Amino acid sequence: MTKVNVIGAGAFGTALAITAKKAGNDVLLWTRHRDHADAINSEKGNSKYLDNVSLTPGVEATSELARAGNANILLLAVPAQHVREILAQLKPWLAPETVLVMCAKGIEQDSGLLMSEVMAEIAPTNPIAILSGPNFAREIALGLPTATTLACRDREIGEDIVKAIGLPAFRPYLTDDVIGAQVGGAVKNVLAIACGVVSGGKLGENARAALITRGMAEILRLGEKLGARAETLMGLSGLGDVVLSCSSPASRNFSLGAALGQGDILGEILQQRIAVTEGVYTASAICRLAEKFNIEMPICFAVNEILNGGVAVSNAVEELLARPFRDERLAGF
Amino acid sequence: MTKVNVIGAGAFGTALAITAKKAGNDVLLWTRHRDHADAINSEKGNSKYLDNVSLTPGVEATSELARAGNANILLLAVPAQHVREILAQLKPWLAPETVLVMCAKGIEQDSGLLMSEVMAEIAPTNPIAILSGPNFAREIALGLPTATTLACRDREIGEDIVKAIGLPAFRPYLTDDVIGAQVGGAVKNVLAIACGVVSGGKLGENARAALITRGMAEILRLGEKLGARAETLMGLSGLGDVVLSCSSPASRNFSLGAALGQGDILGEILQQRIAVTEGVYTASAICRLAEKFNIEMPICFAVNEILNGGVAVSNAVEELLARPFRDERLAGF
Repeated sequence: MTKVNVIGAGAFGTALAITAKKAGNDVLLWTRHRDHADAINSEKGNSKYLDNVSLTPGVEATSELARAGNANILLLAVPAQHVREILAQLKPWLAPETVLVMCAKGIEQDSGLLMSEVMAEIAPTNPIAILSGPNFAREIALGLPTATTLACRDREIGEDIVKAIGLPAFRPYLTDDVIGAQVGGAVKNVLAIACGVVSGGKLGENARAALITRGMAEILRLGEKLGARAETLMGLSGLGDVVLSCSSPASRNFSLGAALGQGDILGEILQQRIAVTEGVYTASAICRLAEKFNIEMPICFAVNEILNGGVAVSNAVEELLARPFRDERLAGF
Repeated sequence: MTKVNVIGAGAFGTALAITAKKAGNDVLLWTRHRDHADAINSEKGNSKYLDNVSLTPGVEATSELARAGNANILLLAVPAQHVREILAQLKPWLAPETVLVMCAKGIEQDSGLLMSEVMAEIAPTNPIAILSGPNFAREIALGLPTATTLACRDREIGEDIVKAIGLPAFRPYLTDDVIGAQVGGAVKNVLAIACGVVSGGKLGENARAALITRGMAEILRLGEKLGARAETLMGLSGLGDVVLSCSSPASRNFSLGAALGQGDILGEILQQRIAVTEGVYTASAICRLAEKFNIEMPICFAVNEILNGGVAVSNAVEELLARPFRDERLAGF
């Protein structure tokens, strides 16, 4: 039996624990708070982050890192900005062959590093992989059909992960493009905020579709500079995730944007949330990357100006939609 | 003053007449039915196809082809399967320099021809262009921000069209890729039916996002064979339109699929509709193209089997979602 432990008991980590157990693995679900672990074990569910869903029988929650770190495969589902800290705490308990699968999406705010780079700094000898795709946690937990990208440079290890966690209703598609599999997931959080602003401001579906199109062009430009393959960016972890996050009020980033578009105040929105809205942290890191590589990413810049530059939502959006007539080619569509 | 007449007084033609008039042109809106033209002129609106929207003052409806054909620019907004017939009727009234702008999306069912090819057969000496993008008619009519692709091989003529009909809230982006600008608009109708089926069958957003991702791969494969540029397919007329049509119950093709996914009968759904659901006609033509070029287009084939092959909806969808684990690269994501 493969030991597949999940680090992080938010909605996504809980869904992964449910599906990994269904796939026949030994599964521990780690949360940093002992009372949260106790609650999960007594509820046999996670009402705090994923209400009205039952855990697959046999999933156990724990707050002990020593136990959680003892696994063949570790699914890391903590917020991107906490990955470095938690991985450092886990490190003493890791076997050299434990496979670390990053399930968080985002770029580290201070360093501008991709999650694979953070993992390589903290646990340089462990094999790593990236799981990323259009994956709402609740749908995974409910067993609705889901496809995702699993990126691993070592093909054999990648196949082992797919074999361990794959199910007919949870299908990881393998690639070796570890960089490419991270770009879409990081940028889409920012694009989803922009699409939420358009939706909240009642600017219509035509404008949202145009914004998604331009957003994918930003992802393709950034990805190219980072060494990603276009086919990966056009796949589940890129286009698929962008489409999902930018279309659904169920996306945290989208709903943050929608609230901003309706005129709500950023600080007040964030105060009311218990779950992390990753795009708020990733936006500035992406803009610094764009500046470093000299890439045009107007949507990400507009969102960053709204979040961190004190620019009024209406001005930023107006500027985005009112770019002059240009060739589609030059406009980056 | 430029004379910009619109052929076809459905929702889209009416919206184009409204926006073309706002842009300062002389505008006639043609419908084949005299009583429909009379109703539009007396209502100063088109309650049959676009209710609760007022025409821009000065837009006049007519059922006389001789009057409608007398224009600098003709916007052709009749259903794709009627283009050949109506263009043939218009032909005697066209000046040689009248620019024909195709605003219908689809492939001619019997011939498998793109709209630009049909136009070239009927009016080989007139300049032609393609207008295609993520454009809900109602939003255009209401003046909500909209971007679209305007494809014309002659740059000067293309710029004239953009200058005539462009507005801050209706922005055509110019390209010379006439073929590329038609592929997305044709295939998206079929993909929208598939996404509707997934939505109506309550299979979830993860599945829909995966389907859109695979669907774009089908468009890229077909477009490549037809001579389209990838950047056009990734632009407003391709990705943009796919995202719009595959996300919104307001899309006719999506809502048809949703009804099928809920178990309704195709014939009964179509009987209740006054507007044309283009994907029903285009699906078989696309499948024949795919066979001719030996391209894998499993989603289009599944939709065609549902529409024309008597295959049960549940079986077709199951087959689509249950393809074996493969490399993302090979899977065409």
